[in-house]
Amino acid sequence: MATNVKNNQAIVLHSGGQDSTTCLAWAIKEFKKVEVISFDYGQRHKIELKGVKKICESLQIPYQIIKIDILKELTKNALTDKKIQIKAGKKGQLPSTFVEGRNLIFLSTVAIIAKTHHIPHLVIGVCQTDYSGYPDCREDFIKSLQKTLRLAMDYPFKIHTPLMHLTKGETVKLMQKLGRLELLKYSHTCYEGKRLACKKCPACKLRLKGFNEAGVEDPIAYA
Amino acid sequence: MATNVKNNQAIVLHSGGQDSTTCLAWAIKEFKKVEVISFDYGQRHKIELKGVKKICESLQIPYQIIKIDILKELTKNALTDKKIQIKAGKKGQLPSTFVEGRNLIFLSTVAIIAKTHHIPHLVIGVCQTDYSGYPDCREDFIKSLQKTLRLAMDYPFKIHTPLMHLTKGETVKLMQKLGRLELLKYSHTCYEGKRLACKKCPACKLRLKGFNEAGVEDPIAYA
Repeated sequence: MATNVKNNQAIVLHSGGQDSTTCLAWAIKEFKKVEVISFDYGQRHKIELKGVKKICESLQIPYQIIKIDILKELTKNALTDKKIQIKAGKKGQLPSTFVEGRNLIFLSTVAIIAKTHHIPHLVIGVCQTDYSGYPDCREDFIKSLQKTLRLAMDYPFKIHTPLMHLTKGETVKLMQKLGRLELLKYSHTCYEGKRLACKKCPACKLRLKGFNEAGVEDPIAYA
Repeated sequence: MATNVKNNQAIVLHSGGQDSTTCLAWAIKEFKKVEVISFDYGQRHKIELKGVKKICESLQIPYQIIKIDILKELTKNALTDKKIQIKAGKKGQLPSTFVEGRNLIFLSTVAIIAKTHHIPHLVIGVCQTDYSGYPDCREDFIKSLQKTLRLAMDYPFKIHTPLMHLTKGETVKLMQKLGRLELLKYSHTCYEGKRLACKKCPACKLRLKGFNEAGVEDPIAYA
């Protein structure tokens, strides 16, 4: 199998949000060298990519933003089409914000880059505890994808999901323990792409729930 | 899980080559309705996409060609970079023509489209018998990917690989049995993108081996 594997290095998939920022702080502690990859996929809350820039610059972590048009072109969802209303999923239905195949395409792309950099470790902030109903955030998907990536490229990829089994409150506490709470002021969560955050969309609600549970004040401003 | 599943329809991933053409003929017999998706990924033998057009038009099958730049941008290989020499893989090494993550990205993209069309069946001409040493042509990869796609999108995808366990000769015979041998005159195989086919690259050699084994004359012309 692989030679030259840099086992002390990782690539963090970063959306600019709270969970990715927490994963980045975790990875910096866990690995000797860390780099960040983010995607511009036509999301309505593109403002989150400014968060990536600020967060990585403040930590002096190298980052690249990759433009991918295919998700916007091929799928219909509220995140890449402003005409579709943002709605949480009800009774076995997927939320209108679910972007079909997003984590699959993102992680596959990151894996291709990671192999060319000889880096086996990928880190992503997915979570199935307090999650939005996206199937590609669940542990069984991530485990299956890890196996698929290994077979696709004959390379010993390992996907790390440090938040998988944490509640939103526990994720806030993890960041507190990592001593990086202040970084979250740069992170963006609101689906509407608003700054001040709208407070009403499913993403804002979930974020606020976490800070409330942890008894910590969110450093970003709300409307 | 999924509603409105069109179980009698399939999407065939078509490279313009001999194997895809055989798979397309197989799918037409197997399913009520078939459509084709091909990729323009910066391959040096882009001439194969002309084959897709001719083959689909002659069969009156709808097709679309999707442009994907990311493989050429992210990976180094002899198919998307003419400066790299075409070489078969030796002793546990991958051939220089291996495009990292190609079938992974292709099948993931096709799956996203298939779900939006309510089509669960995907057909691809990969084969692990007489193969070029590409890990993403093996059955264990395809099986793992099928599971991953299902989990990623909560949809009952089925990946069909009718050539997986056939020798190149048996693939030629299958096409003969399907009564479509003449179609292969439009298919393109040569890595060099030459017409007349070069006869020397690993792809030409494999194709010729198959026709020889089957005792059938290849309808394309060689240099």
